[in-house]
Amino acid sequence: MGDTRVMCTVSIGNGVPRFMKGQGRGWLTAEYSMLPGATRERSQRDATRGRPQGRSVEIQRLIGRSLRAAIDIRALGERTLHVDCDVLQADGGTRTASITGAWVAVHEALNSIGLVDTVLLHRVAAVSVGIYRGTPVLDLDYSEDHVAEADINLVMTAEGRVIEVQGTAEGEPFEMSAFEALLSLGRAGIETLVEQQRQALLV
Amino acid sequence: MGDTRVMCTVSIGNGVPRFMKGQGRGWLTAEYSMLPGATRERSQRDATRGRPQGRSVEIQRLIGRSLRAAIDIRALGERTLHVDCDVLQADGGTRTASITGAWVAVHEALNSIGLVDTVLLHRVAAVSVGIYRGTPVLDLDYSEDHVAEADINLVMTAEGRVIEVQGTAEGEPFEMSAFEALLSLGRAGIETLVEQQRQALLV
Amino acid sequence: MGDTRVMCTVSIGNGVPRFMKGQGRGWLTAEYSMLPGATRERSQRDATRGRPQGRSVEIQRLIGRSLRAAIDIRALGERTLHVDCDVLQADGGTRTASITGAWVAVHEALNSIGLVDTVLLHRVAAVSVGIYRGTPVLDLDYSEDHVAEADINLVMTAEGRVIEVQGTAEGEPFEMSAFEALLSLGRAGIETLVEQQRQALLV
Amino acid sequence: MGDTRVMCTVSIGNGVPRFMKGQGRGWLTAEYSMLPGATRERSQRDATRGRPQGRSVEIQRLIGRSLRAAIDIRALGERTLHVDCDVLQADGGTRTASITGAWVAVHEALNSIGLVDTVLLHRVAAVSVGIYRGTPVLDLDYSEDHVAEADINLVMTAEGRVIEVQGTAEGEPFEMSAFEALLSLGRAGIETLVEQQRQALLV
Amino acid sequence: MGDTRVMCTVSIGNGVPRFMKGQGRGWLTAEYSMLPGATRERSQRDATRGRPQGRSVEIQRLIGRSLRAAIDIRALGERTLHVDCDVLQADGGTRTASITGAWVAVHEALNSIGLVDTVLLHRVAAVSVGIYRGTPVLDLDYSEDHVAEADINLVMTAEGRVIEVQGTAEGEPFEMSAFEALLSLGRAGIETLVEQQRQALLV
Amino acid sequence: MGDTRVMCTVSIGNGVPRFMKGQGRGWLTAEYSMLPGATRERSQRDATRGRPQGRSVEIQRLIGRSLRAAIDIRALGERTLHVDCDVLQADGGTRTASITGAWVAVHEALNSIGLVDTVLLHRVAAVSVGIYRGTPVLDLDYSEDHVAEADINLVMTAEGRVIEVQGTAEGEPFEMSAFEALLSLGRAGIETLVEQQRQALLV
Repeated sequence: MGDTRVMCTVSIGNGVPRFMKGQGRGWLTAEYSMLPGATRERSQRDATRGRPQGRSVEIQRLIGRSLRAAIDIRALGERTLHVDCDVLQADGGTRTASITGAWVAVHEALNSIGLVDTVLLHRVAAVSVGIYRGTPVLDLDYSEDHVAEADINLVMTAEGRVIEVQGTAEGEPFEMSAFEALLSLGRAGIETLVEQQRQALLV
Repeated sequence: MGDTRVMCTVSIGNGVPRFMKGQGRGWLTAEYSMLPGATRERSQRDATRGRPQGRSVEIQRLIGRSLRAAIDIRALGERTLHVDCDVLQADGGTRTASITGAWVAVHEALNSIGLVDTVLLHRVAAVSVGIYRGTPVLDLDYSEDHVAEADINLVMTAEGRVIEVQGTAEGEPFEMSAFEALLSLGRAGIETLVEQQRQALLV
Repeated sequence: MGDTRVMCTVSIGNGVPRFMKGQGRGWLTAEYSMLPGATRERSQRDATRGRPQGRSVEIQRLIGRSLRAAIDIRALGERTLHVDCDVLQADGGTRTASITGAWVAVHEALNSIGLVDTVLLHRVAAVSVGIYRGTPVLDLDYSEDHVAEADINLVMTAEGRVIEVQGTAEGEPFEMSAFEALLSLGRAGIETLVEQQRQALLV
Repeated sequence: MGDTRVMCTVSIGNGVPRFMKGQGRGWLTAEYSMLPGATRERSQRDATRGRPQGRSVEIQRLIGRSLRAAIDIRALGERTLHVDCDVLQADGGTRTASITGAWVAVHEALNSIGLVDTVLLHRVAAVSVGIYRGTPVLDLDYSEDHVAEADINLVMTAEGRVIEVQGTAEGEPFEMSAFEALLSLGRAGIETLVEQQRQALLV
Repeated sequence: MGDTRVMCTVSIGNGVPRFMKGQGRGWLTAEYSMLPGATRERSQRDATRGRPQGRSVEIQRLIGRSLRAAIDIRALGERTLHVDCDVLQADGGTRTASITGAWVAVHEALNSIGLVDTVLLHRVAAVSVGIYRGTPVLDLDYSEDHVAEADINLVMTAEGRVIEVQGTAEGEPFEMSAFEALLSLGRAGIETLVEQQRQALLV
Repeated sequence: MGDTRVMCTVSIGNGVPRFMKGQGRGWLTAEYSMLPGATRERSQRDATRGRPQGRSVEIQRLIGRSLRAAIDIRALGERTLHVDCDVLQADGGTRTASITGAWVAVHEALNSIGLVDTVLLHRVAAVSVGIYRGTPVLDLDYSEDHVAEADINLVMTAEGRVIEVQGTAEGEPFEMSAFEALLSLGRAGIETLVEQQRQALLV
């Protein structure tokens, strides 16, 4: 996705958070962070601020929800998948790149313990679409993102079913018809990404 | 909105955050919090945890974005509108109730300094819609919300233009057609709420 | 108490803090907070500061001590009463209003589990008294409070026994005789409040 | 005061907190802390907990108020007196020992800059009194303190005027007459302490 | 250095920390962090813990001191070099790899603003040496590091002058003669690293 | 050590940290802090900053490592020695004074439970040495420390074996020969300190 580089790792831990114990179900949790040098202007570390930024919190909740929708937590048993998405270089679309990349890491992690067939229910990818100078555009980069009139993040399965849609007007509210045009464009992007995930797993 | 009660206040401060100084533009920022006794099981205060919960952070960012889309920050001048939404009693839909109620408070605050006509560009309301037992439902309450198959929060102007759409599959991914049905239902709900806002301001 | 509005809730939890486990006794703990919009100038949330303000800490410790003196923690069994006092609007006397109001909420909570007769030992109320322009005054409001020469908070039982007395010179140290005059005035105020608590419970 | 040892230091800083700037007045602020090894059971450091304990916050606010009542902040000019009371060994009465000791340190600090005559208005000392097995007792030690029926901290001037009275029922509410007996006993204790402060300053 | 991978970036900021303002000198500050997936067992993020771990704090202070010794802060002017060392994969020697790598990044950063000749005084590299099963070993990997009897980190200039020596007995205290043998071995390692830095800069 | 005064206490607790449970071994942990008034300029408390300063973290880790090297944690059994070093007055060399003093406190604590002969393996002391105006100097005081060209902290056993060496160039990198001269000087200082520890224990 442009010059965006995200390192996605999955660690499998025994046990689940306290509120889920003894129910025989697993859990998946995600953390998202930008390295300070990933952006043009160096950004402060979350640990320096003492707490994750609101933006990071919002994004890691999205990543977690999206990937939990891909797996059967009952078949996982009382294990936790820790997903870590660390942005090494940022050029727009880091949250959708994180989801798409982390899905590959989840696949590999489940494969390594022989659970990919039973636990992984859906192929999931994510894409951003926006209106840039009046035209719908797939995967906006940093310079386009800043002047986009609308920004939609779309998380879908390979079959075109919806896991999450987040659309925001940047500046002026937009017409519902524009929103629908963006959804169609995003859907096509998802198909391309799912194919790239398939090839990454062949390596 | 059912038994949900949210106290929305707006305080007008002189000046803007440091990163906006000297640009002649104003700012609007929102905070959202639940009183500990607002839920059936008492919840811990954010200050006890030492930081706002991820969910609160996500919601207050949504409230802020939604209301900023309603105003002209240039016409506001270097002032800050502090929006506080505190949930006294929670029964589903607290984030959309917060936006709808806070818009009224923003209107009153701007009116008190004679700026409502120049600063307030749009009438904005928000509603939640979901699929409950296979049927699209407007404004789910707490007991419906927990078993809903899909949950969409919709922020729109009185004219039906989109400010924010957030749709999440709860459990299974859903079809795009279901998503579109929910959008239509939500649009009708927005119209009702905008009318109620109008009446509230007459009092 | 003037324009002061405090929302007092009590939640009953099973279990007690770790340091009291296995002793067959219950516990009561209190939290006090002001909503940001409760004061003329908006105040910052404790969670924004990352910790409760010193003033809040001091007040919630007072509320907790005062209400623990009203109950028999042995008869309560290993349960915890969580008292939450949230100031919706502040006009002086918020700490004493919190104690007086929370006592009613404790009564109702204990009643709901059939323990009011065995656990609630004393009727407790609190009042503030001060010297304003040389004259002892009951229940100072915000504008009086700022220029008071002395400020006493008095927590007593319906029978006139003392639970807590906190008297502070604001400015010049005061004579012991002035202190004694304030105590008498406060005692009369307590009687009025105990009667109002009785009527609130009849509703 | 028994085996209690508190190290009291005063540092004079130029300037005042932001909210007091440009008014030509000074400020006095106090911090109170126990060293971990000061108590029989080692206690955790405040910095380990990430924040001062509620008890420490309450005590340092009392120390600050008590000593501010002793000085003329206008005559101090825009300077800040930082009072630090660190308990090296605790055997009851650490808060009153802190006030009594810190007053001596304030005297010496003001003397060192030639301002003691103009700034220091009152001689101030503090004492604790309690009811132990039915009898009023001055300066309870640790073993008495734990079974006391009432506990009063009294901050007074050498002339017997009141700066602060804090009385708390430990267990059962007590009669107003018992309260008055304790005040008399405390007054006598203050006189002894004021004399000891005088002698300490002669050294 | 084995399978250790550290991403080192340098960002140049205008201005210096408050305590250095107006002195015409620059500053260099370093931050060190491990990505959660860098170790065999996933480690918690510093931001989750709310503060950097003691080990990270110690290492970033070492990196900062080592690189400040390489530059002339007067020639830098009132600029700050922010060095970020993020461990992507850890296999022993991450702190010395960070210093050696960050020196290259500092060189490139200074070169980009035309200051490398005036500001960069020394070529600096760092290496770890240890006693493993009785034999001095250069650059211990993770499995050796855990059973090493002594562990020395050595930061030196290309000319063999000392910037920092940190030697620690792991288990039994060691003889001074062993310490001296390790210093010699480390010196040879530094020469190799300085040559590798030179080649990295040619690319 | 000059005008430096450090209060060193050791508290013995039952149990060990979670990661060591059930292994039959004990633990020793150290905390180091400066009282605010210990330095010429008053310093902020760690609890005010919300976290220990980097410098304190680094020092308390050094104290802990140094004293753990002195004891047999297997012979200690599942107990924890909590070492607290609080600097009452600082005049250079506070970290080495802490180690030397805390060793005496560890001896006394172990003696009080009859374990000194089996648990305490080594006599340990620490000293700082530096180059001041070209000459090696033992135990630099505050005014020398600020202009020293090199600063070495040395932790050794009574027999002259090394536990920790930390040498840092202050300003210019120094020659290895200078480093060796400092080590010799430090070794002589250790012998003096070990003798003083012996005499302190006789009292």
